[in-house]
Amino acid sequence: MSRIVCIVQDFLSDEHKEKIRQAADRADFTPYFFTSAEKDAAKEQLQNCEVLYANSPAILRETSDKLRWYAAASAGADAYCADPSLFANPDCILTTSNVYGATIAEHVIMVTLELLRRMPFFKEPLRRHEWLISPPIRSIKDGDFTILGTGNLGRTIAARLRSMEARRILGVSHSGRKVDTFDEVLPVSQLDTVLPKTDFLIMALPGTPETVNILNRDRIALLPPEAYVVNVGRGNALDQEALRDALNQGRIAGAALDVVVPEPLPADNPLWDTPNLILTPHISGNMALGYTRDENVRLFCKNLLRYADGDTPSGVVDRARGY
Amino acid sequence: MSRIVCIVQDFLSDEHKEKIRQAADRADFTPYFFTSAEKDAAKEQLQNCEVLYANSPAILRETSDKLRWYAAASAGADAYCADPSLFANPDCILTTSNVYGATIAEHVIMVTLELLRRMPFFKEPLRRHEWLISPPIRSIKDGDFTILGTGNLGRTIAARLRSMEARRILGVSHSGRKVDTFDEVLPVSQLDTVLPKTDFLIMALPGTPETVNILNRDRIALLPPEAYVVNVGRGNALDQEALRDALNQGRIAGAALDVVVPEPLPADNPLWDTPNLILTPHISGNMALGYTRDENVRLFCKNLLRYADGDTPSGVVDRARGY
Repeated sequence: MSRIVCIVQDFLSDEHKEKIRQAADRADFTPYFFTSAEKDAAKEQLQNCEVLYANSPAILRETSDKLRWYAAASAGADAYCADPSLFANPDCILTTSNVYGATIAEHVIMVTLELLRRMPFFKEPLRRHEWLISPPIRSIKDGDFTILGTGNLGRTIAARLRSMEARRILGVSHSGRKVDTFDEVLPVSQLDTVLPKTDFLIMALPGTPETVNILNRDRIALLPPEAYVVNVGRGNALDQEALRDALNQGRIAGAALDVVVPEPLPADNPLWDTPNLILTPHISGNMALGYTRDENVRLFCKNLLRYADGDTPSGVVDRARGY
Repeated sequence: MSRIVCIVQDFLSDEHKEKIRQAADRADFTPYFFTSAEKDAAKEQLQNCEVLYANSPAILRETSDKLRWYAAASAGADAYCADPSLFANPDCILTTSNVYGATIAEHVIMVTLELLRRMPFFKEPLRRHEWLISPPIRSIKDGDFTILGTGNLGRTIAARLRSMEARRILGVSHSGRKVDTFDEVLPVSQLDTVLPKTDFLIMALPGTPETVNILNRDRIALLPPEAYVVNVGRGNALDQEALRDALNQGRIAGAALDVVVPEPLPADNPLWDTPNLILTPHISGNMALGYTRDENVRLFCKNLLRYADGDTPSGVVDRARGY
């Protein structure tokens, strides 16, 4: 009996499917395609598959201990690491897809410019059809930036800021290991000394036990009044209520959150109308961009051939560490 | 009697004034500082000055034929070229200040990302506190751009797009002369063949008789339905009503105008509420950014020393040509 790969994705075009079929053929796998709505039709193949390319932790409940590799289309692994019982086979490999750097970096550059150029200030006047001139603004050029997280995402953001002539880009990571794109990388143990000197903080962290509430109330209080905060990692990386208090009291200059707790954000949550806050509904790294989808499929096909050759696919997650 | 330089600017800090004083001292000029509100106090010195650093055509009416160099703090020369009688001395040199490229380019990158990432789509849902996922978006990365105008501004925008991995950047200029930052530059005579293939059009043109209404109704009709239009040059470079019609009828994907006709835009102008239009009140290249002011003063000081040495200052405008 041939080896089975199940593909449970809603974003695939016919072209994507054809690419996966060709890769499966070369890898000597039989592919079965399902959308996330086709749970019943997928039941038998999910029980028998050795490889699963999907995008939802719940689907793992449908698999058996025959599953040896789960390829997540997402960049984040947190949803798969919280509960070890998700995997019937404890040795099942988990990979994530590091293909969101470019689109998330474009979102970050957009909201960074919106904050520095004071777009929240113009929101109400524009609605009232008032032609106002600008209050003092700032710039990426000659600006200083601190990026929490120096992985694929943090590096892509740093490269974009660099090319727009940022003056200094400081990274903060678990290890503090030097990364070329940054002027300097400090370990997270020094975060409390970094924050008081931070003009602009960009949070691009994976969701792990270590990153939960890393920007807590005390640390938000360390930021200077001119500081801006952007979060595109996980909503629980910051104390949302403390950030809201800081914005309401003008203790920091502004913020842009693409990730919040909970998602979707209820309509009566006070975050919606917080001053100097740019809120977006977790769109920075979604599948709405063509090349994100293309890259996702390309990566999976490449990894399937590696896996069939007995090599380890790229993007393997340490499930205990969480990324 | 010593040579006189008048400075009529509202944006100068004490530090800026000190720098100008030092330059004037080295150039053997006596500097007189006024704000635009101090017209009466300035009267005598304006009559006697040889050099004037200011930012309003009207101030020229206060000068005499002793004026030999007018240094405009603006990037645009159109307000000074429309009426030759502004200059009592027909041989008076006019210079403009090419120091707005970086700040205007940041504005262009911001609105380009806002359009490509469909921010106008989210405007109303966000106001209604609705957490919506994203419609298909596009990206600067791998995108194609056409820039009308290949001067300082067009080049700076092109360099930013390039560093964000744009696929192809086409320039269109009066001469069609090759400019390094662009993949190709075509003469404006070929504009009609360029527009049907244009995904994203950025207009960064000086205000001259040739550029007035350059994007007229017929040319707007040549743009494909997926096209976006950004204008940061002069409002009269496009047919505003034709653009509005195209947006209202969904014949192009969207637009961002930082310059319009007239400015300020009256509150009852229909442009305010046009769908898929990002409207900003001529803020892309204003004086709200610190380094724009610093660069402006630095350029004037450098030019004052050149002028005193008998050299031509940089940024001289051909008043007949208009730029």
